[in-house]
Amino acid sequence: MIRPGPSSPDTGDDVTTQTRRRIIDAATEVFLQDGYVGAKTDEIASVAGASKQTIYKHFGRKEKLFEQIVLDRLGGIGEIFQAAIGELAVTDNVEATLTAVARKFVHAIMQPSHLRVRRLVIAEAGRFPHLGHAYFEAGPERVHAGLASAFEQLTTRGLLRVDEPLLAANHFTWLVVSIPVNKFMFCGDDTRFTQAELDHYADSAVRVFTAAYGVAG
Amino acid sequence: MIRPGPSSPDTGDDVTTQTRRRIIDAATEVFLQDGYVGAKTDEIASVAGASKQTIYKHFGRKEKLFEQIVLDRLGGIGEIFQAAIGELAVTDNVEATLTAVARKFVHAIMQPSHLRVRRLVIAEAGRFPHLGHAYFEAGPERVHAGLASAFEQLTTRGLLRVDEPLLAANHFTWLVVSIPVNKFMFCGDDTRFTQAELDHYADSAVRVFTAAYGVAG
Repeated sequence: MIRPGPSSPDTGDDVTTQTRRRIIDAATEVFLQDGYVGAKTDEIASVAGASKQTIYKHFGRKEKLFEQIVLDRLGGIGEIFQAAIGELAVTDNVEATLTAVARKFVHAIMQPSHLRVRRLVIAEAGRFPHLGHAYFEAGPERVHAGLASAFEQLTTRGLLRVDEPLLAANHFTWLVVSIPVNKFMFCGDDTRFTQAELDHYADSAVRVFTAAYGVAG
Repeated sequence: MIRPGPSSPDTGDDVTTQTRRRIIDAATEVFLQDGYVGAKTDEIASVAGASKQTIYKHFGRKEKLFEQIVLDRLGGIGEIFQAAIGELAVTDNVEATLTAVARKFVHAIMQPSHLRVRRLVIAEAGRFPHLGHAYFEAGPERVHAGLASAFEQLTTRGLLRVDEPLLAANHFTWLVVSIPVNKFMFCGDDTRFTQAELDHYADSAVRVFTAAYGVAG
């Protein structure tokens, strides 16, 4: 819904979008540098070249700004994944399509900027569990719900044998991403994997998954 | 190696062990409360009822104390796991023993105090990657090396079919623990699972693993 408020009569939508983008990028940088508690709106305003008032107008308080950053990050990965899940539900070649989905997924999730935000959310989940909840719902739970639905359709079509779709969805994604994600979580921001390594994790995860949930023969 | 230094001529081993235990428990409490950067040696000394000098004598600087806390936590889980891995290598009933190992493992790792330390290590891994490395080596990598060795022996004995033992070890552990561990990481310290839920994660992980790596028939 587009509804320019009386407080911004001269602001076109493009300008608003650009301003929001600039603030989100600046806030991401400052949050990652200083942590959630250490991040100051003054610093974010300075990096963004915006006033504190503008930040408050667009995002409200720090907590809401952080949620927007998280949702912004997850949105990109969610889009990739929703498209892939759509292909999966209608495929006739489950293993090939699962492999394509797994590869796209692991490459998307292993972007260092995404993983640093992931680590920051975990870091604050003890003190601010609602931030972690927001991430968990918009990220893993959304992906798992979509995958579970695709697995159900493939089971109905006789191409998979899945009795607990949500459990199977969890098995699939954690098989694909756990090895590189956990290594990055613990071993720091310089942790890198080659494309071939990530593809190998994806392919072997699909092999394990289809052995368990595939239709023999 | 027990070698009382000249600086503690009257300190029996029991007293030393108790003092170390008290300092480790106090430091864990303070680190979890205030974070790594926020934790102060003064506060740890006060909670432990020990002097700062005693802490420095036993552990050195804050970084070393934190490493000791991490290694202390992992030691307990490592012992459970090494015993279980020993049973696994010589079992004649792979599925039953894997199930027992998986259940022990998921129950041990899901202790809230352990998971809070895990989250703290991840939180600091961007700024202090050597802390995360220490955790990763003493925890996941040690467990995976032991499991990989057991899987190799079971493959030699014709009871499993594992071509990449370390990859298979990773598949096994992340299948078992990823669902509850990730939920706790994101959704806060009050996240709880019933024994039955954890057993179900363990059992279903074993079912997926043996479908992929078991010997058919």
